[in-house]
Amino acid sequence: MSGCPFHFTRRGFLGLAGLAAAAGAGFGARGVIEKVTGLESGRAQKAEPFWGKHQAGIVTPTQNNTYFAVFDLVTDKRDEVIALLKKWTDASARMAKGQTADSADQADPGDALGLPPSRLTITFGFGPSLFTKGGKDRYGLASKQPEALADLPKFNGDQLVPEHTGGDLSVQACADDPQVAFHAVRQLARLADYTAQIRWTQAGFMSAPPGETARNLMGFKDGTGNPSIADPAAMDKVVWIGREGPDWLQGGSYMVARRIRIALEHWDRMKLAFQEQTVGRYKLSGAPLGMKGEFDKANFDATDKDGNPLIPENSHLRLAAATNNDGAQILRRPYSYNDGVNFTAERWPPWRQGMEYDAGLMFVCYQRDPRTGFIKIFDKLSKFDMMNQFATHVGGGLFACPGGAGEGGYIGQRLFEAA
Amino acid sequence: MSGCPFHFTRRGFLGLAGLAAAAGAGFGARGVIEKVTGLESGRAQKAEPFWGKHQAGIVTPTQNNTYFAVFDLVTDKRDEVIALLKKWTDASARMAKGQTADSADQADPGDALGLPPSRLTITFGFGPSLFTKGGKDRYGLASKQPEALADLPKFNGDQLVPEHTGGDLSVQACADDPQVAFHAVRQLARLADYTAQIRWTQAGFMSAPPGETARNLMGFKDGTGNPSIADPAAMDKVVWIGREGPDWLQGGSYMVARRIRIALEHWDRMKLAFQEQTVGRYKLSGAPLGMKGEFDKANFDATDKDGNPLIPENSHLRLAAATNNDGAQILRRPYSYNDGVNFTAERWPPWRQGMEYDAGLMFVCYQRDPRTGFIKIFDKLSKFDMMNQFATHVGGGLFACPGGAGEGGYIGQRLFEAA
Repeated sequence: MSGCPFHFTRRGFLGLAGLAAAAGAGFGARGVIEKVTGLESGRAQKAEPFWGKHQAGIVTPTQNNTYFAVFDLVTDKRDEVIALLKKWTDASARMAKGQTADSADQADPGDALGLPPSRLTITFGFGPSLFTKGGKDRYGLASKQPEALADLPKFNGDQLVPEHTGGDLSVQACADDPQVAFHAVRQLARLADYTAQIRWTQAGFMSAPPGETARNLMGFKDGTGNPSIADPAAMDKVVWIGREGPDWLQGGSYMVARRIRIALEHWDRMKLAFQEQTVGRYKLSGAPLGMKGEFDKANFDATDKDGNPLIPENSHLRLAAATNNDGAQILRRPYSYNDGVNFTAERWPPWRQGMEYDAGLMFVCYQRDPRTGFIKIFDKLSKFDMMNQFATHVGGGLFACPGGAGEGGYIGQRLFEAA
Repeated sequence: MSGCPFHFTRRGFLGLAGLAAAAGAGFGARGVIEKVTGLESGRAQKAEPFWGKHQAGIVTPTQNNTYFAVFDLVTDKRDEVIALLKKWTDASARMAKGQTADSADQADPGDALGLPPSRLTITFGFGPSLFTKGGKDRYGLASKQPEALADLPKFNGDQLVPEHTGGDLSVQACADDPQVAFHAVRQLARLADYTAQIRWTQAGFMSAPPGETARNLMGFKDGTGNPSIADPAAMDKVVWIGREGPDWLQGGSYMVARRIRIALEHWDRMKLAFQEQTVGRYKLSGAPLGMKGEFDKANFDATDKDGNPLIPENSHLRLAAATNNDGAQILRRPYSYNDGVNFTAERWPPWRQGMEYDAGLMFVCYQRDPRTGFIKIFDKLSKFDMMNQFATHVGGGLFACPGGAGEGGYIGQRLFEAA
């Protein structure tokens, strides 16, 4: 099989032709395939490669939409877990090319028929409970669980709810079209029948003006301080697990997800200058306080005429900066989320009770080791960050994303098959 | 002021310049404005006109994303309602051009800064409760309430929940970017402080392959039978209220919204042929059963070799067709929605209990009179449609969308100011 993203396997070809015939649609297989691949030019038309040393969706330029899902395994059979990962791998590789999830005539519901690949990536992760749960070695994997893959500690202010927290297997679909992202997860959920069930999901969006950093719902640029995804050496240093990790995890990364509800109604009532003190950056330019350009280096020693630090002690920027965390860095890949409104009784003036947004940030980050990455940085933030007045962590988890699969292999193969 | 969609008022110019100065951003107002308007070509860059005889967002080609919100008024003062509608009108006209919601330096949170207009439209509607609520004439409007503007009747199978139903004022933002659509509603909610509060919201998406009809989450093309939005005579016949309506509503339209949860897990397990019998169309082509092309006329008299109708008696297509409803037509403008998963106990085999999608269709349609439009058609559908096995109406409402406003006027002006 060729590596061309628009190559159709014989199997896929027949499957689609079968659908056309079954539907009595009256046009040939060629016409069908053209519809499925999409032939227009443009960013949405592009396909991201699925196979490779690393999983896609980690250092891939951020797509505009995500659908994140976490599954719980409901089987006690190791072979069924392996079979599931094989099915998921095959289906993901197909869908990344803009094909249906499988080649069976009728199985794919077709809601993405005709839509282009839309740069779909699907990224898989393994939660601590895949290895041991309630003290039980569920699938003979306990000896392979890395020490770093443990439930996250309880941080100051955590308000995690079970319906948005934890789980055995994480699946994150990202695409430039929300219909394509949801289609992908829905197919994987269907293929998981009787083996795994969805535990929780989260949809998200994040639009960047061309060539600029995207803004989150607080109106600030989000991701300015990231190491460059275009710099392989930086990714090797910050993101990709090397020889320090178990063989099955080399070329992979630890992913931390946090569902962060933001009190937008309150934030919007704060004065701009206060918002900027909280973040440590100017809203419009994204520059660190006291500087001109978004990517200027922050000067944490700078003071105003009264001798107060220009970048406040408890600002987000100062507390999170690598230089103030022994060099700790992570690759942030967040999305905004908006799940409508629900009833909220406010804890502070004006003590309003009413419908408020269940909206905020679906924070996702990647790192070589969560203990020296997210946990180290957020332990401090959770205690001192001024932003905590507006942000509440209500869910999430830690997942080990194994390295990528070569064509014909499957995600997690080295975990299950290595000696 | 000119009608050019990229014209900046002096007021807006100064406001933005003020933000730049306040932020210490170090670049001039010209740079800011270029960022705000977006100068790249492409569909997302386009602005839809706000002012006009009709409100935008009704016969506008469907954008890819929506954020729908319904507000309840919390004031008893008619003047405050008028002031709100004026503020909403001004802000909407600005945002449709890609500007911030108002010209005050700091009020707009800025999450859409730099993003192009993205064909944003904002469409307003008045619920029956704006006119009378609990028998009370709240704002001296009771005498102007049209007979057609009443709570929808309870249909067979309705499972409406208060947190997705009814309300005084509907606001639907549609845009080719979800961040732009939510930004718009969030600004209007902020401007409504102490006058109106959000009652419920619904986000949605709908992607069409270029030049094709979009598919809903059931995988079928949705909207094939619509009258053409490019045909003004058809729109006058089906959508726009004429002299039969009160003066304030002429040039407007009645909008019915229905939040329809679809049991996707069940639908996906049905065989293709059964799905097609349910819909009355082929999935792939969208053609009526027995025909070749999507837009071929359905032959409701055609039978198979056993004499059974090719398009089943209880299929969605047959029951909804204008020819079987005394010519009743509506303009459908639906979006898919996906609000994650929640716990569901199934009512039929395999009686599974677990997390299932809270997903389906945010059905929105427009018509001159709901009694001869949606109510007439859906009364029959709610009793006989095979699709009811999979679809449950869980919320919605009826809203009268007044005609559009001329520049300097405001939405609903003729309702409040006419003799």
